Amino acid sequence: MPQITIALKKRPGKKNLPVVGVINKVDAPNYNSVKKKTWEEELGIDLVEVSALTGRGIDDLKAALIRKASYADENRPLISDLINPGELVILVVPIDNAAPKGRLILPQQQVIRELLDHQAIAVITGDNQLKPTLNNLKSQPALVVTDSQVFGPVSTIIPLEIPLTSFSIIMARYKGDLKTLVKGAKAVTGLKPGDRVLIAEACTHHRQADDIGAVKIPRWLQKKVGGNLDFNWCAGFDFPPDLASYKLIIHCAGCMLSRREMLYRISLATAEQLPIINYGVLIAYLHGILPRALLPFRELSHPL
Amino acid sequence: MPQITIALKKRPGKKNLPVVGVINKVDAPNYNSVKKKTWEEELGIDLVEVSALTGRGIDDLKAALIRKASYADENRPLISDLINPGELVILVVPIDNAAPKGRLILPQQQVIRELLDHQAIAVITGDNQLKPTLNNLKSQPALVVTDSQVFGPVSTIIPLEIPLTSFSIIMARYKGDLKTLVKGAKAVTGLKPGDRVLIAEACTHHRQADDIGAVKIPRWLQKKVGGNLDFNWCAGFDFPPDLASYKLIIHCAGCMLSRREMLYRISLATAEQLPIINYGVLIAYLHGILPRALLPFRELSHPL
Repeated sequence: MPQITIALKKRPGKKNLPVVGVINKVDAPNYNSVKKKTWEEELGIDLVEVSALTGRGIDDLKAALIRKASYADENRPLISDLINPGELVILVVPIDNAAPKGRLILPQQQVIRELLDHQAIAVITGDNQLKPTLNNLKSQPALVVTDSQVFGPVSTIIPLEIPLTSFSIIMARYKGDLKTLVKGAKAVTGLKPGDRVLIAEACTHHRQADDIGAVKIPRWLQKKVGGNLDFNWCAGFDFPPDLASYKLIIHCAGCMLSRREMLYRISLATAEQLPIINYGVLIAYLHGILPRALLPFRELSHPL
Repeated sequence: MPQITIALKKRPGKKNLPVVGVINKVDAPNYNSVKKKTWEEELGIDLVEVSALTGRGIDDLKAALIRKASYADENRPLISDLINPGELVILVVPIDNAAPKGRLILPQQQVIRELLDHQAIAVITGDNQLKPTLNNLKSQPALVVTDSQVFGPVSTIIPLEIPLTSFSIIMARYKGDLKTLVKGAKAVTGLKPGDRVLIAEACTHHRQADDIGAVKIPRWLQKKVGGNLDFNWCAGFDFPPDLASYKLIIHCAGCMLSRREMLYRISLATAEQLPIINYGVLIAYLHGILPRALLPFRELSHPL
């Protein structure tokens, strides 16, 4: 084994990421564990000895990853703090071309799963079957959660006394900071034609013809502003380091990002005093239904 | 570009797999398209020219893959032929330690999605909330689909006039050949202590303490047979070529396999006159509820 100089070149900084150190190739005949202790002292982190060749230590590595992983996301309530066990929640899931074949998207799965974990009942319907579904229930649902894109028609079907919100707003609270994202809605009224707007999406999926981030949101927003805006897009983990020239960031729900990453992006925006909003909050705002969609969240007593 | 001898070493045989031929490195200065035509004639298949370096032709390759892919699985009904648009289906999804955190397993997702595609309504509940859920409906559900593991308690709650089946049986029909798998149930009565039994699972997940394939099914089956059986297990795409020594194959629902692969495995078993059954059919049979679980399927008029 050749002599090596070791150092953590870049300590995880702002994102406060946990670190698991690994020594591979410990099957090498000239490897000895004394080096492990020396390296651990030098780096200031624990190291796990593994051999990718023989599989030695791989279970220890998995255990170390699990110990270090933050479960902050999983312990936050997505929907379970809004309802009680035994209550029934209607989820409105319209199917369009962007829906993955034969599957449900992650936020829908997560909400259904948390309802089941919480001993609640999920009723899933498209918007066109919503009225008969509602009429078929002897007692009213405790909550209705809709896909943002049909918030308008759904809000006319669901009586005002039944709490109503959207998957995107639930995700905004779960992954990010709902108060900051709601403040972003106020900034929309100040936008002027020609302003630079960043649309950030965590997915790198192929875009559909009428894509929400590429087509619908720009169209709705320009109609509101009354002129063209200078849109820029980023996708995946690609997020521009220089935000100074933007007037607004519009971010997707972030279901493919960790809460840590989403809060980091929000902190970058707030450091620049740059308003940030997410798709769901923006769509609800542009359709005039944001106040109603925020009512189920007691922490936002005066949301707007 | 060096001279090369080309031939398809192994023509896709029994599995009848479609083939897409690809020529990579067409960015090489000495590549010319005349070679493509020669090779196509020699091999008897179409070839797509790509350069992984420059990205040239990658879209053509994707299009060729899509054209060749068989959508036989997707066009088969999973549940939509059992119900009508506007009807309501109750799905019983108990949550145990084996359920992936924050998600639904694929068969549950696929069933919910197909109900939505079919303009039907899915009501999802754990078994402990099933009775109040049923009582909260003004009209009866058109069908109840339960996780096999709670078929017993669910069958006592759901009145006999409401059709009831399990996710596993729906998957058995969708991925395989329900008639053959149901015949496998008859073979169970002929099993004797000491017989060799193969348990085949498509997933390679970490096993839970009370794993269905590793623990529960062997326990139930040995209780039925009245003695120990000689169990062998296989997982993933690993399926033993020599089946002659087995008396029964017990296969998982196959949600991670293509229908083609599942039918191929069933054909290997029937070629050996070896009974094959799947988890769901076996569990329903061992709990005495298979006849009821098969009633919704009109094609099985005399199932047992």
